Amino acid sequence: MEFEESGIGEECGVFGCVAAGEWPTQLEVAQVLTLGLVALQHRGQESAGIVTSNGASPPTYTAHKGMGLVSTAFSPEALTKLRYGNLGICHTRYSTTGISELQNCQPFVVDTLHGKIAVAHNGELVNAHALRKKVMRHGVGLSTSSDSELITQLLALTPPMEELDSPDWVARIKNLMTETPTSYSLLVMFKDVIYAVRDPYGNRPLCIGQLVPISKLHSPAGAQEEDTEGWVVSSESCSFQSIGAKYYREVLPGEIVQISRHGVKSLSVVSRPEGDLPAFCIFEYVYFARPDSIFEGQMVYTVRQRCGRQLAIESPTNADIVSTVPESATPAALGYAEQSGLPYIEVLCKNRYVGRTFIQPNTRLRQLGVAKKFGALTDNFAGKRVVLIDDSIVRGNTISPIIKLLKEAGAKEVHIRVASPPIRFPCYMGINIPTKEELIANKPEFQDIAGYIGADSVKYLTVEGLVSAVQEGIAFHNEKDKMNSNNKSDRKVGHCTACLTGKYPVELEW
Amino acid sequence: MEFEESGIGEECGVFGCVAAGEWPTQLEVAQVLTLGLVALQHRGQESAGIVTSNGASPPTYTAHKGMGLVSTAFSPEALTKLRYGNLGICHTRYSTTGISELQNCQPFVVDTLHGKIAVAHNGELVNAHALRKKVMRHGVGLSTSSDSELITQLLALTPPMEELDSPDWVARIKNLMTETPTSYSLLVMFKDVIYAVRDPYGNRPLCIGQLVPISKLHSPAGAQEEDTEGWVVSSESCSFQSIGAKYYREVLPGEIVQISRHGVKSLSVVSRPEGDLPAFCIFEYVYFARPDSIFEGQMVYTVRQRCGRQLAIESPTNADIVSTVPESATPAALGYAEQSGLPYIEVLCKNRYVGRTFIQPNTRLRQLGVAKKFGALTDNFAGKRVVLIDDSIVRGNTISPIIKLLKEAGAKEVHIRVASPPIRFPCYMGINIPTKEELIANKPEFQDIAGYIGADSVKYLTVEGLVSAVQEGIAFHNEKDKMNSNNKSDRKVGHCTACLTGKYPVELEW
Amino acid sequence: MEFEESGIGEECGVFGCVAAGEWPTQLEVAQVLTLGLVALQHRGQESAGIVTSNGASPPTYTAHKGMGLVSTAFSPEALTKLRYGNLGICHTRYSTTGISELQNCQPFVVDTLHGKIAVAHNGELVNAHALRKKVMRHGVGLSTSSDSELITQLLALTPPMEELDSPDWVARIKNLMTETPTSYSLLVMFKDVIYAVRDPYGNRPLCIGQLVPISKLHSPAGAQEEDTEGWVVSSESCSFQSIGAKYYREVLPGEIVQISRHGVKSLSVVSRPEGDLPAFCIFEYVYFARPDSIFEGQMVYTVRQRCGRQLAIESPTNADIVSTVPESATPAALGYAEQSGLPYIEVLCKNRYVGRTFIQPNTRLRQLGVAKKFGALTDNFAGKRVVLIDDSIVRGNTISPIIKLLKEAGAKEVHIRVASPPIRFPCYMGINIPTKEELIANKPEFQDIAGYIGADSVKYLTVEGLVSAVQEGIAFHNEKDKMNSNNKSDRKVGHCTACLTGKYPVELEW
Amino acid sequence: MEFEESGIGEECGVFGCVAAGEWPTQLEVAQVLTLGLVALQHRGQESAGIVTSNGASPPTYTAHKGMGLVSTAFSPEALTKLRYGNLGICHTRYSTTGISELQNCQPFVVDTLHGKIAVAHNGELVNAHALRKKVMRHGVGLSTSSDSELITQLLALTPPMEELDSPDWVARIKNLMTETPTSYSLLVMFKDVIYAVRDPYGNRPLCIGQLVPISKLHSPAGAQEEDTEGWVVSSESCSFQSIGAKYYREVLPGEIVQISRHGVKSLSVVSRPEGDLPAFCIFEYVYFARPDSIFEGQMVYTVRQRCGRQLAIESPTNADIVSTVPESATPAALGYAEQSGLPYIEVLCKNRYVGRTFIQPNTRLRQLGVAKKFGALTDNFAGKRVVLIDDSIVRGNTISPIIKLLKEAGAKEVHIRVASPPIRFPCYMGINIPTKEELIANKPEFQDIAGYIGADSVKYLTVEGLVSAVQEGIAFHNEKDKMNSNNKSDRKVGHCTACLTGKYPVELEW
Repeated sequence: MEFEESGIGEECGVFGCVAAGEWPTQLEVAQVLTLGLVALQHRGQESAGIVTSNGASPPTYTAHKGMGLVSTAFSPEALTKLRYGNLGICHTRYSTTGISELQNCQPFVVDTLHGKIAVAHNGELVNAHALRKKVMRHGVGLSTSSDSELITQLLALTPPMEELDSPDWVARIKNLMTETPTSYSLLVMFKDVIYAVRDPYGNRPLCIGQLVPISKLHSPAGAQEEDTEGWVVSSESCSFQSIGAKYYREVLPGEIVQISRHGVKSLSVVSRPEGDLPAFCIFEYVYFARPDSIFEGQMVYTVRQRCGRQLAIESPTNADIVSTVPESATPAALGYAEQSGLPYIEVLCKNRYVGRTFIQPNTRLRQLGVAKKFGALTDNFAGKRVVLIDDSIVRGNTISPIIKLLKEAGAKEVHIRVASPPIRFPCYMGINIPTKEELIANKPEFQDIAGYIGADSVKYLTVEGLVSAVQEGIAFHNEKDKMNSNNKSDRKVGHCTACLTGKYPVELEW
Repeated sequence: MEFEESGIGEECGVFGCVAAGEWPTQLEVAQVLTLGLVALQHRGQESAGIVTSNGASPPTYTAHKGMGLVSTAFSPEALTKLRYGNLGICHTRYSTTGISELQNCQPFVVDTLHGKIAVAHNGELVNAHALRKKVMRHGVGLSTSSDSELITQLLALTPPMEELDSPDWVARIKNLMTETPTSYSLLVMFKDVIYAVRDPYGNRPLCIGQLVPISKLHSPAGAQEEDTEGWVVSSESCSFQSIGAKYYREVLPGEIVQISRHGVKSLSVVSRPEGDLPAFCIFEYVYFARPDSIFEGQMVYTVRQRCGRQLAIESPTNADIVSTVPESATPAALGYAEQSGLPYIEVLCKNRYVGRTFIQPNTRLRQLGVAKKFGALTDNFAGKRVVLIDDSIVRGNTISPIIKLLKEAGAKEVHIRVASPPIRFPCYMGINIPTKEELIANKPEFQDIAGYIGADSVKYLTVEGLVSAVQEGIAFHNEKDKMNSNNKSDRKVGHCTACLTGKYPVELEW
Repeated sequence: MEFEESGIGEECGVFGCVAAGEWPTQLEVAQVLTLGLVALQHRGQESAGIVTSNGASPPTYTAHKGMGLVSTAFSPEALTKLRYGNLGICHTRYSTTGISELQNCQPFVVDTLHGKIAVAHNGELVNAHALRKKVMRHGVGLSTSSDSELITQLLALTPPMEELDSPDWVARIKNLMTETPTSYSLLVMFKDVIYAVRDPYGNRPLCIGQLVPISKLHSPAGAQEEDTEGWVVSSESCSFQSIGAKYYREVLPGEIVQISRHGVKSLSVVSRPEGDLPAFCIFEYVYFARPDSIFEGQMVYTVRQRCGRQLAIESPTNADIVSTVPESATPAALGYAEQSGLPYIEVLCKNRYVGRTFIQPNTRLRQLGVAKKFGALTDNFAGKRVVLIDDSIVRGNTISPIIKLLKEAGAKEVHIRVASPPIRFPCYMGINIPTKEELIANKPEFQDIAGYIGADSVKYLTVEGLVSAVQEGIAFHNEKDKMNSNNKSDRKVGHCTACLTGKYPVELEW
Repeated sequence: MEFEESGIGEECGVFGCVAAGEWPTQLEVAQVLTLGLVALQHRGQESAGIVTSNGASPPTYTAHKGMGLVSTAFSPEALTKLRYGNLGICHTRYSTTGISELQNCQPFVVDTLHGKIAVAHNGELVNAHALRKKVMRHGVGLSTSSDSELITQLLALTPPMEELDSPDWVARIKNLMTETPTSYSLLVMFKDVIYAVRDPYGNRPLCIGQLVPISKLHSPAGAQEEDTEGWVVSSESCSFQSIGAKYYREVLPGEIVQISRHGVKSLSVVSRPEGDLPAFCIFEYVYFARPDSIFEGQMVYTVRQRCGRQLAIESPTNADIVSTVPESATPAALGYAEQSGLPYIEVLCKNRYVGRTFIQPNTRLRQLGVAKKFGALTDNFAGKRVVLIDDSIVRGNTISPIIKLLKEAGAKEVHIRVASPPIRFPCYMGINIPTKEELIANKPEFQDIAGYIGADSVKYLTVEGLVSAVQEGIAFHNEKDKMNSNNKSDRKVGHCTACLTGKYPVELEW
C-alpha cells in the first residue's frame, strides 16, 4: 500500500501484436493492442501510445499518443485511424522523472537510412548518461530526456551506414546490447516484424502469448498451430486473458525473438559476463505485477501468499485476527492467516473514488491523510488484537494514519507485519524509489519503527525469506521447449534485490 | 456483481453541511461538501452538483454542476467559486431514465415568492405522474422530467401565496409529505437552514454527523457540544470518515430535522397510515450501500456477512473452497466460509481499469464478455470444487462467462450461492431494475438456472433468511435519545422487499 | 467601434425553420438551423441552442445547447442527434446580465398540461419584475433569471387549465401580449407549428424567408409556390443568403404568424394603445445588424451610408482624407467621403486574431489599450488632416488610443465624426448599455470631448439627422401584400430613440 | 481571396524577444512573445509554440506548444510556466504537408554535446531530401518530417565534436548556410543569445524591433539607446505595434545577427553565388503579409495599392463601379478606383463567423459554396457594371460562386481584374501551392477563363507590372546604417517570381 501512496512505480508496460497468416486478416490488431494496454495500465498511468504498421514495403506507420489513462488518451476516432495495421506495438508510461509531457510518450518512431523503426521499452539504461554523451559526441542532437530516444538513435547510428535492401536490425540490436547491459525489455518494430528483446540480466519481464479462436481458448485439446490468429508480446501475461490469448512462453534473459506473421522465432541469446546470474526484479513479485501474471512459471499471487506464510513462520504474533491493507497485501495476508491459524477478517473498506484530490493542502481535512481513503469496518475488530499485513513500507508515513484509524475505532492492538524486507537503496533500473535519505529504513526513527508509526510491533520479512518464497516455485520447462533455436542452454535462477541489499547486478557507471 | 454489470443502480446520494457557531467560521464548507460527495460516488456517477448559501438575508446562493464523476465535474476554480458558503447541499446522480443531461442535475435552485430554495433528493415519487398533472393543471410548466423539479414546484405552490418575512417552509414540507407517501430522502436549503426529511416509510436512508476537531475525532472522552465545528447530513455514514465527522444519528422515517448553525432539531414526524410498517429498502443492505455504512444501528458489512452465514445454513455445499466475485460479494463469501468451515480462497483478480470500453461491439473480443474484467488465479482452484458467492443475479448473463472462465481454467465444479433471493418485480421507488420480462427469475430458463448459466448448482438465499439476517442486528437506541422533540414514539422495524415479493409498501397509482 | 469595445450588445438572435410538404422531406432542417444561427452570431456569442421537433403527435423534441460560438457549442454528433426534426427553433445569446450559465441558454422547453412547447426570444420585457412577482404569487418557482422562462410560464399558466386536444396557443400568446407591451420577438414551437411573434411596438426585428431550390434562388422568374422547400424565420435577413432562402417579408409589429408545413399564415395583429407609433430600435440600423440585412424594405448598409452623408452635410470638415474605424463604420465613412468630396483612404488595419486576451492586466502592455488591435497604415496619412468616422461613442475611452496612435504615427489633425447622436440614457428593452453615469455624454468631460479624447474636433450626427436618414428609404409594400389575413391596416412608421432622447415607447413600471 | 479558400498559405511565422539590461528585468518576455505571435497568426493557424530561456549557464529552457490558434494553445497556466524567461523564441505554423501533429510543432529544442539549442524557422529547404539522406547516412534517426528537426541535427553534427566551454554556433550556422542556399528565416536560441538568420537569397522576411517605454513609443525625439527595454525579431513588422516596439531594421539576405541583452550585432553576411540577385518572395507583397507590415522600406499596403493602379493602367474597364472581394483585395481595389476614376463601392459583406464548417458535404447547402460567406449589398450594385478586384486566382473555383451571386442579385456586368499574374508553377520554398495540374492557368479552360468562371471579362496584372509596382518604392537606407559590422555592401534588389515564371532562384536538386 505504501508503494502506491509513495508515488513509487514501475516505469512502463509494453505490448505488441502481429496478426498471423496472409494479410489483411480478420484480426483487429488495434483493438487487441488497446485492450492489451488497458490490462497493463497498473504499470503506468501517465501516458499511452500505439503505433501500427501495415507491414508493406515501404511500410506505413500510424501513431496515436495521449496523456493519461488509455481510456482518456484513446478515442474511437484514434482507434479508427489505427485500424489498418497488421501489426503494432504500444506502451503505457509511468513518469519516473517528473517531466510529464507528450513528447516523452512512447513508442518512438524514427526515420533512418534503412526506413522507419518504432521502439517501445520498459526499464532504465544503467549507463544512460555515458551513452547520451557518446551519441551526442557523434553529432546527434537529442530532443528528449528519455531512454527510448537514446535507444532509437543508438540503433540508427551503428555502422556501416549505407542504404540496404535488408538492413540487419538484429546485428544492430545485438550491438546495442553490448553497449548497455541492463535494464530493458524492448519491442522494436520494423516493417512487418516485431523484435522482442530482454536485457541479458532479464531485469524486466516480457512474455509471449498466442491468439486463438475464443472458442478454443481453454479447450483441453489445446489450440493447434493452424488455429493461431496472431501473436502478442507483453510485459505481463495478465493481459492475455483480456484479449483471448494463451500464455506461450517468456522471452529469456538476453534473448532476441522475432515475431512475424509466420510465427515466433528465437534469433539469438546474448550472454551475461561469465559467472553473473540473471537479475529479474524481485519487486515485480512483491508489488508491481498484477497477481494473476505468471513469471518464471509461477503465478505472482502464489508467491505473495508464500511470502505471507514465510512471514508468519519468521514473525508469529500473539493476536486475534489477521487482516490486510487492501488490496495489494491481501494474498500475503491470506497466506499469513493460513500459516498462523488466525482468522482472516477484513478491517478496512477502500473508497475507490478517492483519487488524487484537487483540494488544496492547507485545510483541516489534510490531517485525515490517507485515512480518507478507507472506511473502518469497526464491528469486525473492536476490542481485538489485529495483525495487519502490508506489502512494503517505504517512507513510513502512510501506514501511520491507518494504524491510528484502527486504534481509535477500537482495535486493542495493531501489529504490523510487512511481506517484504526494508527498502534501503535506490534503484537505477527503472523503479522510481525515493532517495536513500527519504527511506524510513535509513532514518534514525527506524530504531523504533513501531513507536514511530504507532504500532504495537513491526516485523519485516527477511531477504532470505523473500528470496526463498520467490524461488521455490520456479518452473522453466515450457520456455526451453519452445525456443526454436539451438540456444537451449540451461536456464539459471537469480533475482535483483539491489534495493534491499545494495548489491546491484552490474557495476554502476556515472 | 451482476447488479453492477446490469446497469442497475441507486438513484442518488445527497449530502449537506452547515458550519456551527458564528459565521464566517473556519470550516471550509465547500471542501467538506466535495469530499462528502466523493464518498457517496458509488450511489451515482452520472452527474454532481453543489449549491452553497452564505446564509445572509436575502441569501446569495452559488451553484456548480457538472456531468460525470465529482473529480471531473469539479475543478479547483469551481471550488473557489463555492467557498464563500456557510452551508450547502449537494447531490450525485445515477441516471434512472436514460436522459442524461446537465439540466437534470441536482440540486435544483428555484426562486419563489418567499425567496430562493435549493432542493436535493434521493428516491422516486410513486405518484409522480399524478403530481405532475396536478402541478401542470395549476398552470405550471415543468422544464425537466425529474422529481426534484416537481418537488420544488410543489413546495412553491402551496397556498397561501403572499409575501411573508418568515415563510413557513416546514408547513409546506409537511404538505408535500401528505401529497406523496414515498420514496424520498430530501434536503431543502433555505437561507441559513437545511431541512433534512425522510418519507414516512423511511424508504431511502439519511443520517446526521457531527464535525469535530480531527484531534478529538476518536477521543474516548468524545467530543463535547462546544467542540462542534459543524453538522453534516448524508445518504450514508461512510462519508463521515472522509471528512472527520462522528456519526450522530439517523433521520427517522417521516421526520423533518432542521440543521442550522445553532444545532440539530427535530421539528416533526409525519406518520404513516395506521398499521403500516416502515419500508427501508432491503437492497441498501444487499448491494447499494458501502459496507462501512451504518443503517439502523448496524454495519452493512456485518449484515452481508450474516447473509453469507445464513446462506451456508440454508444451502450447504459439498465442495473444497469458498470464493467471491470481487468485490461486492466478499463479506458474504467470508460469512459463508466461516459458517461452512470451508477455506476462503480467492479465484478471481479484478482489473480495475477495464471500464466502459469504447470499443465497438462487432468483434471477436466481445465473446470474452465480462470475463475481460477478471484474471483467473488458476493455481488457487485448479482441480477443486468451488463455491462461488455472488450478491445477486438479475439477468443471469454476466455470471455465466465467469463460470466458464473458471471451469476452463480447471475448476472441477462451480456451485453458485447467491446471497439474496431472486429478483422478480420492478421497483417504483428509485432503483433502476429491468422490466419483469428481463429478469431471469421470471423466465422459463429459471427452471434450470444451473444449466442455463453453466453451474453445477445454484442456490439463492430465502426471503425469510434475508429478512432475518437484516433484522437480527438492528439497534435504534441512539437515535431516539437524540431526538430533541417530543415525538419519541417507539420505532418500528420493517423493510421493503417489493422487488422480491411484489408487496409494495403503498398501493401504486398510475 | 466603441460599441464593440464597450461590451454593449444586442441581447440575442432567434431563428426557426419548417420543412414544407409531406414529412419526412429531403430538407435537412438541423443544418439549416445551424447555418442560420451562424449567420446571426454577431447578435450574441455567449451561448447557442437548437431544439427540433419531429412534428408528430405527441411530438418528440430534441435539444442541444452549449456555451460559446455555434462552432464550439455544436459538434457533428450534436447535429446528428438533431437531424430527425421536421422543424425547429434556435437561439444565440448575448449575456446582458453577466450570469453566463448553460441553464440560461435558450430555447426553453417546458412541459405543460397541453404538451411541450419550446420558446426562443429576443428582447427584454419592460415589466419583467412585476410579471415575475405575479407568476410566483401564483405559486410557480422560477429556476432562472431569464425572461424566456418567465414567458414560458406565463404561456403555461393562462387559464382555463384543462386538458384539451387542441389547446389554443394563439389565445395564450395574445394574452401574454396584453400582459407585456414590449420588447420581444418571439418564436414558440408547438408540435408541428412555429408561431412567430413581434411585440406591438415592433421593437426587435423578425422576418420570414422562403427556402427554394438553390438553382431557382436568383432566377428572374422567381420561385413558384410549388417550389417551396421550407420556411425560415429570423431576426435578420442576412441569414437567408447562407442557407439559400429568398427574403419573403417582415413580421409586423404586434403580428402573430403561424408557420407550418402548409405555409405562412398571419393569424392576428395585436394593436398598440391608440396614438402610439411603432418603436423599432434605431440602433439596429446604427450598429447591431449586419449591413446586408433588410429592415422596413431597406438595406442597413444604405442607411449607414445615408447617415454618413447626412453627417457630412451637418458637420463638414476642412481636411485631406476621410477614413473609418474598421469595420462597422465603413459604410458611413464612404457616405461621408462621397458627400464631402474628400478621398476615402484607409488608415487602420485590424488584426482579427486579437480577441479577448487572457493576459493579466498589470503590465506594460496594457497601456497600449485597444491600439493593440490595429496597425497604422502610416504612409496613407502621414502629414495629413484625417476625418475619422466612428459609428458611436459610448464611454469615450476606446477611441482615444486610436487617435493617439494616428497622431504619433504622423497624422497632422484627427477630426472625429460620429455617425450617430450621443447616447445619454439606458435601454430597458434588451440592449446592454452602461449606467447613465458611465456614458461619456453625461459626464462633465463631455463639455470638451475633443480635448478629452485628444481629437482636433468632434461632431455627432443629430437625432433629427439620424431619424431622417433612417426613415427616408422605408418601403413596406411587399409585406402588406403578403399578409394572408384581413388586417391590412396601413403601416405606420416610428423608431425607438430612447437611449438618445429619453423618450421610451412605454411608461416604465418598476 | 482565392488564396484563402484554396488552402494555400505561408509556412510559418517566427518571433523572438530578448530583455535588455541586467537580468532579471521588468520586461515580461512571455507576454511579449505571446502577443507577438498573435500578430503573426495570419501566417499559420495550425499550431503555436514558445520556448523561453532563463539565460543562465547552463540555461533552463521552458517550452509550451499546442495545436490551433495561439489563444487556444496557450492558457494562463502556460504563460505562468513560461514567465521566468529573459529571452525566448516562438513560432506559429501553417501545415504544408497535411501532417498536423503536435510533434511537428516548433520551436524544436535539442540537447547537443554543447548544450541545448532551440530553433524556429520559416521556409522550406530546397534540398531537404538530400540533406535528410546525408544526416541519416551519418547515423542519425529523424523523428519528424519537418525541416526544423533537420536543421537542428545539421547544427548538432558539424564537427569537431568535443565538449567546449564556448561552442562556436556561428561557425555551425555558417556551415549550415553553405549546405543549403534557401529558403529559411531562422531563429536559433542558445543560452542567452538569439541568432537571427536569413538565407542568402532573403527568400523569407525577418526584421528587428526595439522595445521602448510605451510613453516614448512615438515621441518625435525618438527613444534613446538607454531607453531600450528589449529587442524583438519577427517575420513581419506588423507585430511591433501590438507590443509597443519601434521598427529597427531588416535582417539582410545572408546575414547572421546576434541579439542579446547587450544589443543587436551583425556577425556575418554569407554571400550568394556571384551574379545571383536576392529572391525575396513576391507573394509576401501580393497576399501573405499583413498590409501594415514593412518590407524593404515600404509598406505592403502601398505596394498593393500600386498593383491596383498598375492594373488599371494595363487593363482599364468600361464600367460603373470598382469593388473588392473583402478583405485582402481592398488596397488594390482602392488603387484601381483611384487610377481609373471609377467610384469605389462595396458589393459584398463578409460573415466572419463562417469558418470551417463541420457540416458534412452531401447536402443541398453545399451548392452555395463560398457564397455562404458573403452577403450581397444588392442596393449598391443592382443594374450596374462592376469591376471586381481579386488579389489572385489559383484554381478558379472560388471566384465563380461570387460572380454568380452578384449577377443573380442584379449586377449588369462583372469584370474580374486580378492584382497579380496567373500562377503557373509550384513553389518549393515554403508556400503550399497546388500541383501544376490543379492550377487554372495550366488548364485548357484558361483559354476562356471569363467563360469558365462566368465573368464578362478577366484580366491579370503582368509580371512586369507586378515587379515594377513592387520595386519602385524600395528604400534600404535605414538598414545599411544600422549594420554594426563592416559588411555594408550595397544592397541589391531582386524578387522570386518562380510561381509566375518558373525561374527558380537556385537549381532544384531532387
